[in-house]
Amino acid sequence: MKTNRRQFIKTSALTGAAFTILPSSALFAQDKSTKVRLGFIGVGLRGQGHLDLALRRNDVEVVALCDIQQRMMDMSLNLVQKAGKPKPQVVLEGPYGYRKLLENKNIDAVVIATPWEWHTVQCIEAMNAQKYVGCEVITGMTVEECWQLVHTSERTGMPLMMLENVCYRRDVMAVMNMVRQNIFGELVHLQGGYQHDLREVKFNDGKQAYGGGVEFGTKGFSEAQWRTEHSVHRNGDLYPTHGIGPIAMMTNINRGNRFTELVSYASKARGLHDYVVKKGGENHPNAKVNFKLGDVITTMIRCANEETILLQHDTNLPRPYSLGFRVQGTKGIWMDLNRSIYIEGMSKEEHRWEEAQPWLEKYDHPLWKKYASDASGAGHGGMDWFVLNAFIESVKRKIQPPMDVYDAVAWSAITPLSETSIRLGGETVEFPDFTKGQWMYRKNTFAIDDSF
Amino acid sequence: MKTNRRQFIKTSALTGAAFTILPSSALFAQDKSTKVRLGFIGVGLRGQGHLDLALRRNDVEVVALCDIQQRMMDMSLNLVQKAGKPKPQVVLEGPYGYRKLLENKNIDAVVIATPWEWHTVQCIEAMNAQKYVGCEVITGMTVEECWQLVHTSERTGMPLMMLENVCYRRDVMAVMNMVRQNIFGELVHLQGGYQHDLREVKFNDGKQAYGGGVEFGTKGFSEAQWRTEHSVHRNGDLYPTHGIGPIAMMTNINRGNRFTELVSYASKARGLHDYVVKKGGENHPNAKVNFKLGDVITTMIRCANEETILLQHDTNLPRPYSLGFRVQGTKGIWMDLNRSIYIEGMSKEEHRWEEAQPWLEKYDHPLWKKYASDASGAGHGGMDWFVLNAFIESVKRKIQPPMDVYDAVAWSAITPLSETSIRLGGETVEFPDFTKGQWMYRKNTFAIDDSF
Repeated sequence: MKTNRRQFIKTSALTGAAFTILPSSALFAQDKSTKVRLGFIGVGLRGQGHLDLALRRNDVEVVALCDIQQRMMDMSLNLVQKAGKPKPQVVLEGPYGYRKLLENKNIDAVVIATPWEWHTVQCIEAMNAQKYVGCEVITGMTVEECWQLVHTSERTGMPLMMLENVCYRRDVMAVMNMVRQNIFGELVHLQGGYQHDLREVKFNDGKQAYGGGVEFGTKGFSEAQWRTEHSVHRNGDLYPTHGIGPIAMMTNINRGNRFTELVSYASKARGLHDYVVKKGGENHPNAKVNFKLGDVITTMIRCANEETILLQHDTNLPRPYSLGFRVQGTKGIWMDLNRSIYIEGMSKEEHRWEEAQPWLEKYDHPLWKKYASDASGAGHGGMDWFVLNAFIESVKRKIQPPMDVYDAVAWSAITPLSETSIRLGGETVEFPDFTKGQWMYRKNTFAIDDSF
Repeated sequence: MKTNRRQFIKTSALTGAAFTILPSSALFAQDKSTKVRLGFIGVGLRGQGHLDLALRRNDVEVVALCDIQQRMMDMSLNLVQKAGKPKPQVVLEGPYGYRKLLENKNIDAVVIATPWEWHTVQCIEAMNAQKYVGCEVITGMTVEECWQLVHTSERTGMPLMMLENVCYRRDVMAVMNMVRQNIFGELVHLQGGYQHDLREVKFNDGKQAYGGGVEFGTKGFSEAQWRTEHSVHRNGDLYPTHGIGPIAMMTNINRGNRFTELVSYASKARGLHDYVVKKGGENHPNAKVNFKLGDVITTMIRCANEETILLQHDTNLPRPYSLGFRVQGTKGIWMDLNRSIYIEGMSKEEHRWEEAQPWLEKYDHPLWKKYASDASGAGHGGMDWFVLNAFIESVKRKIQPPMDVYDAVAWSAITPLSETSIRLGGETVEFPDFTKGQWMYRKNTFAIDDSF
């Protein structure tokens, strides 16, 4: 793709809000014929998932791969070879090797899938290098980092899309479709979260990615090498975006609405220590580790339009997976835990849940209707296909992605704000307005039709 | 029952903590042969439910009935007649008629089922009159009222039991049984609430109790005469006890544990106004009423033993009934919404919910095993039988009821504390320690065996 970056910025300036709000899609001519030249920063297991999907696309050229581990690079090159695609540039030069990748002028866009603590610096440097950025979830570990991302995106004119896949979950999109058709009436209260027993992600034997031991850090493998440290040192909702992303899109956050305050409580922390002792014995060195992350973190959020949102983070205890969605308005309610819905005047029996599935089918989102077969087989029930597709299509069209830098930071900021709230004993803390007032004027462009 | 009240107080004094902690059951000889002479303050629809159960018992003599409405009294006397029991004293002398009832020396105990705002004054006067008190839920609308109840109970030596029936719900008791047998491990997080579309309770046509119109207050009937005013004027968790009662018993609140803080958020208030407009038209006078109660109130509570509790109050919107229980510990989790459970190492499949029913049957509480047939047909799935039975048996034995004044006020105080938290913009507020430090020493006597 031959992108004239100066043109991009100049056009942005025409909107009259160049350094506050990035341009909307309407201003850009579409150009579907070009190939997106993609670089990957981080090709661990998650990065490989995106790489695999990118390799299947005819509109993507995988130009370069960067990682810090030979094992992950070998696995990635194997994927490239299997796909019959040309061998990309390989950068294996330690933690700052990504800078070499960013020097490559043939790269239009990068996909970042590194440990959370590297996201901000890599996003910023990528935008400074005039690359479109698609970054895995958690963009900004502190409020300051969130602001840096916003300022950098505004200054460089380069978009940042956080690759929040749950926004594309089929049932969630059907419910969003229903929300937009006023089936639930005016929205009042929403819930979501991340309730997922991650003990076999946080601990392994250093060889396999999931379980088999109670090692983490330098003795662990894959996510256990870094993710677990966040459970040692931090106490807050460490992983809010899967729950909040879809809710934010349904409630038009940053587009006529915004998060105003939150408060978080943390339960006792028992699960991780118990797991180490049970699997590794009480004499294992990790049995002495003081894991600060409460087992269940509960967060309440208030919105400018007076909706309340409940978020739960629950990753240290034995429990079945559940994101715990609830969408409730003046006309009815949907919950995913019991796969049920109730809509006044439409549900068959008063005061009785009915199965959600027929409703989800009836209101299946146009995007899913159109692309279900393309997404089939992609990670996490197909939603990974949609999120990467939206990124690629945005790059091709030289437009802002449907989830932009303001979404990325508003959702990610929940983590540091919840840490602060807990540290202060449960104080309500204010959300920054990362849009600087533009939330009153912006329009929702997320999945408004069947284009991407 | 010939109760020597002086003896009662003297024996209490022997415990060495007479004016702080009321006597435990061990100190009292049991005397099952006596009849409890019962008076009823408030025989509206809820009071009639208790009356009906009392009339079926051979160990109860219904001595007096008091109300302010002829219609309710007629219905009650009809119940007495149908039961073939002697006509009780009838007091129909306005709002303070209950004082005449309390003058009756032949009454051992009273059941209070009046509007919330009358509970405290009636409980206090009843205890001052040396009556055992069984009071419907919400005992203390303000923290000051809660303290008054505690001080009065301690000073007079008379017990106060709040008649919280959900503590006796069959599935809830089975889960409590499992908690006590360590099936869930150490408890970490619990949830409950009151999620019940009360629009047809808060509004009616002034003739029938449920629905048929949008009147309330003086033009309403039954609960709509008073309960709706609380939705007009107050914004908080107005009805916390059904959710918190069972949770408090599982977590040994006031018995080695206590509530330390809470914080509440209120959503927008739309449901009640919408209902009035939809059913009564926008020109109905009640369409101008500003209902202050947020449609969904969410409250987080912290405990001394570091458990977190989530409570929800949701009574103004169309939705199926659900108390939303969740009990989660280091070994597993139960939720009532999806009627499912997961216990690590015991559930058939890892990371998968299984049906709770077989577990609930296996761990059926001894009380239910023993009394299921007695409770059959009683209100609210039989639980009303158990709560009245516990009260009557406590009076007969001259002992503290299994739920005592400290429970009554700790649970009820959630309402005013949540109102304060919301009014202050979501500030965490402290729970009073109504036991004055005795929570560290007290033991849980709720349903510890099959006696009552």
